Amino acid sequence: MNITDIKSFIPPIRTLMGPGPSDVHPRVLQAMARPTIGHLDPAFIDMMDEIKVLLHYAFQTQNALTLPISAPGSAGMETCFVNLVEPGDKVIVCQNGVFGGRMKENVERTGGIAVVIADEWGTAVDPNRLEDTLKAHPDTKIVAFVHAETSTGVKSDAKTLGEIAHRYHCITIVDAVTSLGGIPLKVDEWQIDAIYSGSQKCLSCTPGLSPVSFNERAVEKIKQRQTKVQSWFLDLNLVMGYWGSSAKRTYHHTAPINVLYGLHEALIMLKEEGLENAWARHERHYQALRQGIENLGLTFKVKESERLPQLNAITVPAGIDEAEVRQRLLNEYHLEIGAGLGNLAGQIWRIGLMGYACNLKNVWYCVEALKEILSKIK
Amino acid sequence: MNITDIKSFIPPIRTLMGPGPSDVHPRVLQAMARPTIGHLDPAFIDMMDEIKVLLHYAFQTQNALTLPISAPGSAGMETCFVNLVEPGDKVIVCQNGVFGGRMKENVERTGGIAVVIADEWGTAVDPNRLEDTLKAHPDTKIVAFVHAETSTGVKSDAKTLGEIAHRYHCITIVDAVTSLGGIPLKVDEWQIDAIYSGSQKCLSCTPGLSPVSFNERAVEKIKQRQTKVQSWFLDLNLVMGYWGSSAKRTYHHTAPINVLYGLHEALIMLKEEGLENAWARHERHYQALRQGIENLGLTFKVKESERLPQLNAITVPAGIDEAEVRQRLLNEYHLEIGAGLGNLAGQIWRIGLMGYACNLKNVWYCVEALKEILSKIK
Repeated sequence: MNITDIKSFIPPIRTLMGPGPSDVHPRVLQAMARPTIGHLDPAFIDMMDEIKVLLHYAFQTQNALTLPISAPGSAGMETCFVNLVEPGDKVIVCQNGVFGGRMKENVERTGGIAVVIADEWGTAVDPNRLEDTLKAHPDTKIVAFVHAETSTGVKSDAKTLGEIAHRYHCITIVDAVTSLGGIPLKVDEWQIDAIYSGSQKCLSCTPGLSPVSFNERAVEKIKQRQTKVQSWFLDLNLVMGYWGSSAKRTYHHTAPINVLYGLHEALIMLKEEGLENAWARHERHYQALRQGIENLGLTFKVKESERLPQLNAITVPAGIDEAEVRQRLLNEYHLEIGAGLGNLAGQIWRIGLMGYACNLKNVWYCVEALKEILSKIK
Repeated sequence: MNITDIKSFIPPIRTLMGPGPSDVHPRVLQAMARPTIGHLDPAFIDMMDEIKVLLHYAFQTQNALTLPISAPGSAGMETCFVNLVEPGDKVIVCQNGVFGGRMKENVERTGGIAVVIADEWGTAVDPNRLEDTLKAHPDTKIVAFVHAETSTGVKSDAKTLGEIAHRYHCITIVDAVTSLGGIPLKVDEWQIDAIYSGSQKCLSCTPGLSPVSFNERAVEKIKQRQTKVQSWFLDLNLVMGYWGSSAKRTYHHTAPINVLYGLHEALIMLKEEGLENAWARHERHYQALRQGIENLGLTFKVKESERLPQLNAITVPAGIDEAEVRQRLLNEYHLEIGAGLGNLAGQIWRIGLMGYACNLKNVWYCVEALKEILSKIK
C-alpha cells in the first residue's frame, strides 16, 4: 500500500444487527463531533457528574463507585477482576460461552484460583450446579457469571445466582455488556456486587467505554487488599481520584473526552425513553423477528425462556454455507449480522436487536434479506 | 442533581494550550461523527491497515508490530511493561518527572525490579548516570525513559540513551506521548525497541488511543516469556490476532471505531503537512512564544537546549497565585493552560503548543491574555 494513496475514510452505511457495535444514533454521533475540552475543565467535570447520575439510573443503583472505564468492555471485565481478586482467591466462574472463558483467563492472570462450572453453550447457567460447587468449595470468595452471553444469546438468572452466592458469603462479578438497556437489570434490588458493561450494545453509543459499578461490599474487599492492584491503569483506588465525588479531581489518565460526550447523550436518550420502555421495545421487536425467522423455517438455538431479545442465535440450516450468507448480507444489503464464536462457530448466526438498531424497519429488512438470499442459495 | 434536569452537553469553545488534549482539528471531529461500522467489517479492516501504514510514517519505522492500543496513553505505557517485563526482570527507570514515576509503578506491579535513576525535575535524563547505573547493575534487562516529559517540558536524548542501553544488551521502552509529531523522533534510526504515544497531543486527535510500536528484538523478548502476560486486555499475543497482518482477523476486543476514524484522519493530515514541516512549525511557534514570554519578564524553567517546543514550563513569578491566573485564563479568555504536577506543582505553568493548536494566533492570544491578567493582579 502506498501511503500517498490513502484518503479520508468515508465508511459505508451499514445496518448493524450483529453482536455489537449496534447502529449509533445520529444524536450520539453529533455529540461525538463537538469540540474537545480539557479533562479537568470544570464544564467537563460537571458532565462527568451527570454521567454518573445517568449511569445510576441505567444500572438501577445508588452505588457511589459507578463510572465508565476509559476502554472497551474487556477492560471493564479486567477492572472487576484485577481489583477484586487477590492472589490465591478462589473464584467460581460459571461458563456457558466465550465470555465466561475470558473471565477464567482473567482470574488466572490475576493469581486467583478459577473453579469453572461448564454449562452447555446455548443454555443458561444452572443455579443448582452453582450451589453444589459452592458446597464443594466453601473457601470460595467470588462468584462470576455472565448475565447476557453475547456469544450464544442466552440470559441467565442474575438475581437467583446472586442470592445463592451471597448465601455462601461470596461476592458477585456480573457481565452485563449486552444486557444493560436491553433487558431488566436491577443492580441494587438484585444485590449485584460488581458489574461491567459496554457502550456499544443496547446503549447505542460507539465502542470504547465500559460502565462499571461496585457496591459497598465490593469496595470493602478492594480496601482490604493486601497487595497492590496489578494494573496501574485500571486500579480503582487511582481511578477514583479522578472520577470520585470529591471537589478536587486528581489527574490519573486522560479521559476519552469525545466518546464520553457520546455516552452522555446516549444515556440521556435512554432516560427520555425510559428503561422499562426500552426493555419493552427490545421484547416487542424480538417477537417480530421471531415470527419472521420462524416463517422462514429457521429455528432458534436457545430455548424460549432463556433467550435474549437483543441477541438472537439462529441455527444455520444443514447444507448452508453460513459465511456466504453473512457476506452476501453485508455486500448486497449492507447488513451486518454476527457469526458463531468458539464452540458455536459455523453453527449459528447472531442477529442483534440492540438499542437504536432495535426497530421494526430493521427486523423486516433483515428477515426479507435473509429470505431472498436463502432462496437463491437453496 | 435531578436527573430530569440533565440536558445534552454543549461544551464551551476553549483554546487548549495545556499539556493535552490539544485542540482537535475540525476534520478530525468530522471524521469522528461518521456512521459506526463493525470492527470486523472488511471496510474497517482496510482502514486499520491504512492506520498501520500511517503510523509507520509517524514513528519513522517499519516495525510490523505497530498499532494503536484501544485506550489512552497510560494504557500504552502499561502495554509495554506488562508484555516486556517478566517477574524478576531488572528494569532501570530514568525518572525526571511524573511519567518516569508511573513507569516505576508499572515495573513493580508487573513483578519486575525497578532501579530508579532520579534526575532533577526540569532537566534531561543524564546519559552518564545511565551508563554508571548499567555498570553497577549488569543484570539489567530493560532501560525505560521518557523522550518528552509532559510534566516538566523536558526533552531527553533518546538516541544516545538508546545507544548506551544497547551497549549493555538492554532493550529500551520509550515514552513518546508528547513527542510524536512535535519533535524529531526516529524509531528505526534510533533503534528504539518499544515505544508508546498518545492520540491527543501533537497528533491533534481526541484522547482515547495509544499508538505503540515494537521492533523484532522486543517481539523476541515477548515470545520468549515464561509466564503469561498479566493483562488479558493488553496481551499483545492476543491483540495481534486482531491487528496482525494475517488475512483472517480474530475478534479480541471491540475496537473504539469512531476514535479510530479520528486517528486515521489526524495521521493523514500529518502526512499531508509532512513530518519535517510539522516539527519545524512547532519550533517556529515556540520561538514566537518564547519571545512573548520573555517580553513579559517571565522565565522558562528548563534550559534552552532541553526544552520541548510543544510544551513550555514557565516559572510562576514570586507572589503570584498560579491557580488564579489559570482560572482567569479559562473563565475570561476560554484559554486552558496546565498547572505544574508533582514536585513542580505550584511552581510552573505548562503552555502547550501541540498539533493543530500550535499556531501563531494561539501564541499571541496566550501572551496577550497572560499580559492582561498579570497586569491586573500585580
